[in-house]
Amino acid sequence: MAVDWGGLLMNPGVVSATDYTSIASINIFVALLCACIVIGHLLEEHRWINEAITALVIGLCTGCVILLTTQGKSSHILVFSEDLFFIYVLPPIIFNAGFQVKKKQFFRNFMTIMLFGAVGTLISFIIISLGAIGLFRKLDIGALEIGDYLAIGAIFSATDSVCTLQVLNQDETPLLYSLVFGEGVVNDATSVVLFHAIQNFDLIHIDAVALLKFVGNFLYLFFSSTLLGAIAGLLSAYVIKKLYFGRHSTDREVALMILMAYLSYMLAELLDLSGILTVFFCGILMSHYTWHNVTEKSRITTKHAFATLSFIAEVFLFLYVGMDALDIEKWRSVSNSPGKSVIVSSILLGLVFVGRAAFVFPLSALSNWRKKSPEEKITFKQQVTIWWAGLMRGAVSIALAYNQFTSLGDTEERGNAFLITSTITVVLFSTIVFGLITKPLVGFLLPPSTDHSSSITLSFTSEPSSPPRSYLSMLLAFGQESQVEEEQTVPPPPPDLRMILTAPSRSVHHYWRKFDDKFMRPVFGGRGFVPFVPGSPTERSLHPYQPSKSQQEEGDDPPPLSPVPATS
Amino acid sequence: MAVDWGGLLMNPGVVSATDYTSIASINIFVALLCACIVIGHLLEEHRWINEAITALVIGLCTGCVILLTTQGKSSHILVFSEDLFFIYVLPPIIFNAGFQVKKKQFFRNFMTIMLFGAVGTLISFIIISLGAIGLFRKLDIGALEIGDYLAIGAIFSATDSVCTLQVLNQDETPLLYSLVFGEGVVNDATSVVLFHAIQNFDLIHIDAVALLKFVGNFLYLFFSSTLLGAIAGLLSAYVIKKLYFGRHSTDREVALMILMAYLSYMLAELLDLSGILTVFFCGILMSHYTWHNVTEKSRITTKHAFATLSFIAEVFLFLYVGMDALDIEKWRSVSNSPGKSVIVSSILLGLVFVGRAAFVFPLSALSNWRKKSPEEKITFKQQVTIWWAGLMRGAVSIALAYNQFTSLGDTEERGNAFLITSTITVVLFSTIVFGLITKPLVGFLLPPSTDHSSSITLSFTSEPSSPPRSYLSMLLAFGQESQVEEEQTVPPPPPDLRMILTAPSRSVHHYWRKFDDKFMRPVFGGRGFVPFVPGSPTERSLHPYQPSKSQQEEGDDPPPLSPVPATS
Repeated sequence: MAVDWGGLLMNPGVVSATDYTSIASINIFVALLCACIVIGHLLEEHRWINEAITALVIGLCTGCVILLTTQGKSSHILVFSEDLFFIYVLPPIIFNAGFQVKKKQFFRNFMTIMLFGAVGTLISFIIISLGAIGLFRKLDIGALEIGDYLAIGAIFSATDSVCTLQVLNQDETPLLYSLVFGEGVVNDATSVVLFHAIQNFDLIHIDAVALLKFVGNFLYLFFSSTLLGAIAGLLSAYVIKKLYFGRHSTDREVALMILMAYLSYMLAELLDLSGILTVFFCGILMSHYTWHNVTEKSRITTKHAFATLSFIAEVFLFLYVGMDALDIEKWRSVSNSPGKSVIVSSILLGLVFVGRAAFVFPLSALSNWRKKSPEEKITFKQQVTIWWAGLMRGAVSIALAYNQFTSLGDTEERGNAFLITSTITVVLFSTIVFGLITKPLVGFLLPPSTDHSSSITLSFTSEPSSPPRSYLSMLLAFGQESQVEEEQTVPPPPPDLRMILTAPSRSVHHYWRKFDDKFMRPVFGGRGFVPFVPGSPTERSLHPYQPSKSQQEEGDDPPPLSPVPATS
Repeated sequence: MAVDWGGLLMNPGVVSATDYTSIASINIFVALLCACIVIGHLLEEHRWINEAITALVIGLCTGCVILLTTQGKSSHILVFSEDLFFIYVLPPIIFNAGFQVKKKQFFRNFMTIMLFGAVGTLISFIIISLGAIGLFRKLDIGALEIGDYLAIGAIFSATDSVCTLQVLNQDETPLLYSLVFGEGVVNDATSVVLFHAIQNFDLIHIDAVALLKFVGNFLYLFFSSTLLGAIAGLLSAYVIKKLYFGRHSTDREVALMILMAYLSYMLAELLDLSGILTVFFCGILMSHYTWHNVTEKSRITTKHAFATLSFIAEVFLFLYVGMDALDIEKWRSVSNSPGKSVIVSSILLGLVFVGRAAFVFPLSALSNWRKKSPEEKITFKQQVTIWWAGLMRGAVSIALAYNQFTSLGDTEERGNAFLITSTITVVLFSTIVFGLITKPLVGFLLPPSTDHSSSITLSFTSEPSSPPRSYLSMLLAFGQESQVEEEQTVPPPPPDLRMILTAPSRSVHHYWRKFDDKFMRPVFGGRGFVPFVPGSPTERSLHPYQPSKSQQEEGDDPPPLSPVPATS
C-alpha cells in the first residue's frame, strides 16, 4: 500500500497550482470533519447514535458519492496509511486518554485492569489464532502462513471501547468505567506489542527457548515503554517547575508539554518500543505532576486542547475508515466468491465473541475472589457489560491488518484480500450494529438512576466527562479523609499481612502516596507543591499542606477548573 | 525541489521498522524544538536575542553537525518544501495574528495600515524589480527573464517584522505597534498575491490593457479573499451561536473553530485566492463574533491554543530555515565565484534598504497630512522604527524563492543558484544581524518609560502581549465612553463633511459600530449578545446592553480573561 502523502502535500494553488486535486481532497476532508461535528452534536440528545457511527456513516456515504462520480474507479480521497495513523492520529488519542484518566480509580483497580488488558488480551489472542488455524485451513482461502494466523489473533484482539465509554456513566458506575477504559488502553498497547513481537519472531523454529524469548521480549517491551513514558513525564515536570515558564509565557509551557509528549512517543518508536504505552504513561505523569506546575490558564488550555486534538483525531479516524471501506481494489479479488467472504467474516466475528468471553468471565471471578467488600466485586451484569464493551473492532485492527496483509503491495493475493475485506467487514459491522445496540443494552443491564438530570444546565459541569456536583461532594469527603491520612506525622501502624494479601493494590496505593509526597512531589511539583503565585485564585490556596476545597474535589485528578468563586 | 514527506512519513518502528531514519529525523526535530523553547526562555531576560535568532542559530549549528557526521553529503533533515510551509506552517501563524490583533487599534489605523501594507509593498516591489533589472544585467550571473526580475521584486518585498514586534511595547506605543503589526500581515499577503499574479501574467505582451488586467486581477484577489475570510468567520459564529455547542462539549466548539478557520484557508487556495488574507480576516471575525459565543473555558483554550500553535510553527520555521541554509547542493554552483555571490547579496540588501525607505517616509508624510491631532501623527523616530522593522526578510521570502527558482528542479542552473543562495544570505544576515541591532536601536529611538516593571509579577498580566493594568484602565474609560455613545437612541447629528474628509477612518469606525450593534451582533453573537448562561462568572454579567466591567476592558478585543474577581 502506497503512502499517498506526497500527492496530498503537493503545491497549494497560491504557489504553483499544479495539484488541484490534493487541495480539493483536504477541503472535502475538513468540510466532512465539520459536518461530523455538527451532526454528532445534533444527534447528541438521543445517544443511540454516537460520533463514531456518525463519522463512519458519513465516510461510507462520501465513499459512495465518490464511487459514483468517478464511475467506480475510486472511492477514497486518501489512501489508508498506517504511518499516518501511527505517527499523527493515534498519539493524541492515547496521550489524552492518559492525561484525562481518573488516576485514583485507575491505580485503585490497577491489578484488575492489567489482568483484563494484558492477560485477557493474551488469552483472546491465543483463542482467535488457534480458531483461525483450525477453521480457515478447511476453507481454501489462499496460502496463509503460521505468522499470518498469529497476526490475525493480534489484529482481532485489539478492541475499540470508545462506543461503550460514551454510553457508560462514570459517576454512577466508576468501577465499571475505569475497568472498561483502562482495559481498552492496555489492550491497544498489548495487541500492538504482540503484533510487533510476532513480526520479529522466528516462526520456523518454535521451541521452548524461542517461546521464552518471545515472552521475555514482550515483557521487555512492556516495562521499558512504561519507563520511558514515566521519564518523559517527570522530565517535563522538572523542567517546567525549575524554569517556571509561566512567568513569561503560557504558550511556552503548553508548547513544551505537547512537544515532550510527542517526543516520548517518537522516541519509543525509534527505540522499537511501544509508543502507545509510552505516551499513555507520559500522559498520566504529566497530569499528576506537570499539570500542577503550570499557570491556571495553561491548565485550562492543556486540558481542553488535548481533549480537542484527541476528539478531532477520533472523528478523522472513523471518517477515514468509512471512506476506505469502499475501496474497489480490495473487493475485486473476493468478488467471485462472496459467500466465502461472508463465512470468513462470520468466523472471525464468532472467534471475537468466544475469545472475549473466554477471559472476561474467568478473570472477573478471579478478581472477585481477591476482593473482600461486596461493592468492589464485579457483578454478573457488569461482567456482561465488560464483555460487550470489547466486542467492537476499530482503527487499530484496520491499521494492523493493512500492515500485515498489504505490506508488499500484494492485496491482489487471494488470502490477503480475504483477510483485508473481512477485517473491514468486521470493523464496520461491529462498530455500527453493536454500537447501535450498546445504548439499550447498557440501559437494560445497568438501569440509570434519575437524579443527575439537572446537571446539564450547570455550565461548568456540562461536559459528559465532568462529574455532577453530588458525586463531587462524595469525592470531596473522600479526599479530605485521605488528605488527613497524609498529614499525620505519626508513622502508621505496621501493615497487617492479611490486608496486603487480600487488597494489595489498595495498600500499594497507600504507600505510593506516602512515597509520592515525601520524595517525588518536592522534586517534580504536583498538587500542593507548586510555588506560590500572587493573584491566582487557585494557586493562592495551593499552599503545601493547606489544601483548598477545589483541590480535593477529585482527589488526584485535575480539579474541574471552575473559575467560579466558592460562593456561587 | 522534491517533496520529501513520503520519506518523512514512512513506517514508524512499531509497525514495520523500514524507515528508521525518518523517525530519527522527527525525533531530532522535535527535540530541537524543545531546546529552542527552553533556550529561548533562558535568554528571555536580556531580549537582545529573540526566539527567531535562537532557532536560526540552533538550526545552523545542527546543520553543521549533520554536515560533519555525513562527511559533507547533506546538511538538512528535511528538504525545504514550500508546500509544507504554505499548507501547514503559515496558516496557524497568520490566523493567530488575526485572532489576537487588537481590532480597535487595527481598524482605527486601517487606512494607514493599508497604505503601508499594500501601496508600500507595491512601491517596494517596483523599486527592487527595476533595481535588479538595472544592476544584475551587468553582472553576468546567468540567464534571467523578465519574470524572474519581477519575482525578485515580490520575493524581497515580503518583510518579516516578528523580531521588531518582540521588542516594541504595544502598551507604550500602541499606534506604532499596530502599524508595524498590521503592515507586516498585509505585506505578507500583498507580496504573495503579487507573486501569484506575476506567475499568471503573460510577460511577453506587456501593454496598457495587460497592465490593467494585472491590477484588476490583484484587486480581485485582494477583495474576494477578504470576503471569503469574512464569510467563514461569520458562518462559524452563526453555527456556534445557533447550535450552542458549549451545552454539551467544549471540545466540539474548539474543534469547529480550528477546522473552519483551516477550511477557509484551504478553500481560498482551492479557488486560487490568497489563503493568507482569507485566514487573517477569518481570525479577526472569529475573535469579534465567534469567540464571544463559546463558553468561558473555550475562550481561554482557544486564545492560548492558537497562540501556542502559532508559536510552535514560528520556531519550527526558523529552525527549518537555519538547517536548510547549509544545504551543500545549492552552494556548489556558486562556489567558483564567491565574490560575485557576495555582490549579488549586497545589491539585494541595498535594494531592500532603498525600496523600503522610498515608501515609509513619503507615505508617513501623507498619513500625517491627513491627521489633525498631534498624537495621531507619526514622528520621525517612529518612521525610522517602521522603516527598520521591515528590513528583515524571513520564511515567506525563502518559500517564494524556492518556488520561483527551483520549481523545475534546476537549482544547478547558474542564475537560479545565485538567487537561491543570495536569498538565504539576505534572510540569515538580516534576521541575525539586524535582529541583534533592533533592541538597542529601538531603545535609543523610543526610550522606554519605567513604570511597567512591576507588571511582571502579576500572574494574569504576565504575558508579553497582555496590557498592564494602568493601560487597561485607560481603555476601560474609553470603552465606557463608546458604550454610552452606542446606547443613545437619539440619532446622531448628520456627519460633518470636513470631519469625514480629515478623519475618515474614525467616522467609518463609528458607523461600523452602529451597524454592528444593530444588524450584525444580534445575528452572529459577539460581545453583549451571547445567551445568558447560569453559573458562568463572565457570561452572567453579559446581558445585552448591560455591559460589565470586564467586557469593556479592551473594547472590541477579547478581554484578558482574568478569572480573578475585581476585588483582587
